[in-house]
Amino acid sequence: MSSLAAYSSWNCTLYKQNHLDNVRVVLSHTTHPGNIGAAARAMKTMGLKHLYLINPSYFPDHQATAMAAGADDVLQDAVVCSTIDEALKGVVLTVGMTARLRDISNEVASPREAMPRVLQQSVTHPVALLFGTEMSGLTNEEVSRAQMLVNIPANPEFSSLNLAASVQVIAYELAAAAEVFQPEAKALQPAPHEQVEGLMAHLEKTLFEIGFFTTQNPARMMQRLRRLYARARLEPDEINILRGILSVTTEYNGRLKARYRQEEDV
Amino acid sequence: MSSLAAYSSWNCTLYKQNHLDNVRVVLSHTTHPGNIGAAARAMKTMGLKHLYLINPSYFPDHQATAMAAGADDVLQDAVVCSTIDEALKGVVLTVGMTARLRDISNEVASPREAMPRVLQQSVTHPVALLFGTEMSGLTNEEVSRAQMLVNIPANPEFSSLNLAASVQVIAYELAAAAEVFQPEAKALQPAPHEQVEGLMAHLEKTLFEIGFFTTQNPARMMQRLRRLYARARLEPDEINILRGILSVTTEYNGRLKARYRQEEDV
Repeated sequence: MSSLAAYSSWNCTLYKQNHLDNVRVVLSHTTHPGNIGAAARAMKTMGLKHLYLINPSYFPDHQATAMAAGADDVLQDAVVCSTIDEALKGVVLTVGMTARLRDISNEVASPREAMPRVLQQSVTHPVALLFGTEMSGLTNEEVSRAQMLVNIPANPEFSSLNLAASVQVIAYELAAAAEVFQPEAKALQPAPHEQVEGLMAHLEKTLFEIGFFTTQNPARMMQRLRRLYARARLEPDEINILRGILSVTTEYNGRLKARYRQEEDV
Repeated sequence: MSSLAAYSSWNCTLYKQNHLDNVRVVLSHTTHPGNIGAAARAMKTMGLKHLYLINPSYFPDHQATAMAAGADDVLQDAVVCSTIDEALKGVVLTVGMTARLRDISNEVASPREAMPRVLQQSVTHPVALLFGTEMSGLTNEEVSRAQMLVNIPANPEFSSLNLAASVQVIAYELAAAAEVFQPEAKALQPAPHEQVEGLMAHLEKTLFEIGFFTTQNPARMMQRLRRLYARARLEPDEINILRGILSVTTEYNGRLKARYRQEEDV
């Protein structure tokens, strides 16, 4: 649970991580230009910039631009290549994304296992996240270029993540892995013991006063109420609000009681 | 790093987890039917089945079906609702997805922090993952119905995840959390949505009646009280206790008021 401040630093750190600059997303033989645009958008939301396209069917294309929805810069800077070796030039680690579970001799990692290893490399060198064509995925040649295969765990009866959805999940995992520090516990500022006890005493007194306890077991009921408010981890100003409510309840009753007594005295 | 065998069991376990059956995805006022279809596809890849739609602009729609790409069953079983309270009926934990970091007093979790808590509840009760409309996200009313807000950490300069991309990331995190999830021995049994709303209405009415709001901003104060009780995750019998207190307060005031009026009439 994180405070706003922790979140801001999360995001800034994420985006500033220089090693994300060493990560390229490589899309091989993409058929639908809309998927290229959607992938660019997914990349940019997670702070990735470098898109490589191996023989896309259509690019540039208005559908790609439309689906990028503001990630035009990623599309504009995209590098179009004619071979996989061109796209992987300078890369020290290639991670191939596979929907199929290939022969058992291949090492297959989950995104959560793989991304820390990707970052380990990208501190110093370019790395590639390689996505195959929409219908059939990576070719055997492409698999042979990868040092690691990654499979996004999915419903075995329906495992077909859309290309851009896969890019989104992988980029999200990478950004999450890039965040090295543990988010701080939510900066709740619970009230000190004596303030909570003050509220409990006030509550009990008020419940007696308004006649709530006539049919209840007061001790047991107060235990229940204590548990409830203990879970809430009340903050000082919340205690003030609750005591304000109790005071109004009491004062109003008090005024009315005084009148009532006057009336009886008459 | 996992072998093929480990992966198969991963996937089967994931899909068999009954508690994913208690998870509903609620999309509020979705403008583009294609997004509904893409969201259904994203859900199904991660083993989620139950889609609720609050006032979608167009549904059913051929674009939704096209984008579902095989997740037609999720669309066919989708429940169309006219209000948020209808969509959340029976739900004990509502998680609101927010792209904005709202005012600092709201507790905001990352998906990774939140999803184990979602599962803890869904072992026994329905839970909801609530996504707002495409352009502006959750309304204040919708936020007020959530016990937890979740923000997908993103590039602060380009944080606009597509609706279906957000559903994909959240569903992926949920499935990943389900894989390692261990139910707590004694889980809280929070009251369903409609009981909490019943208490909130009762509380507001009572605070008006006893005159608490004369010097306070009622809407703002009710937001504070909602947050407090949202943190407590009230159980049904605790709601009964609190409403009992409110009833006694009201009745007592009512009796005294009646006397007071009689007295004035004299």
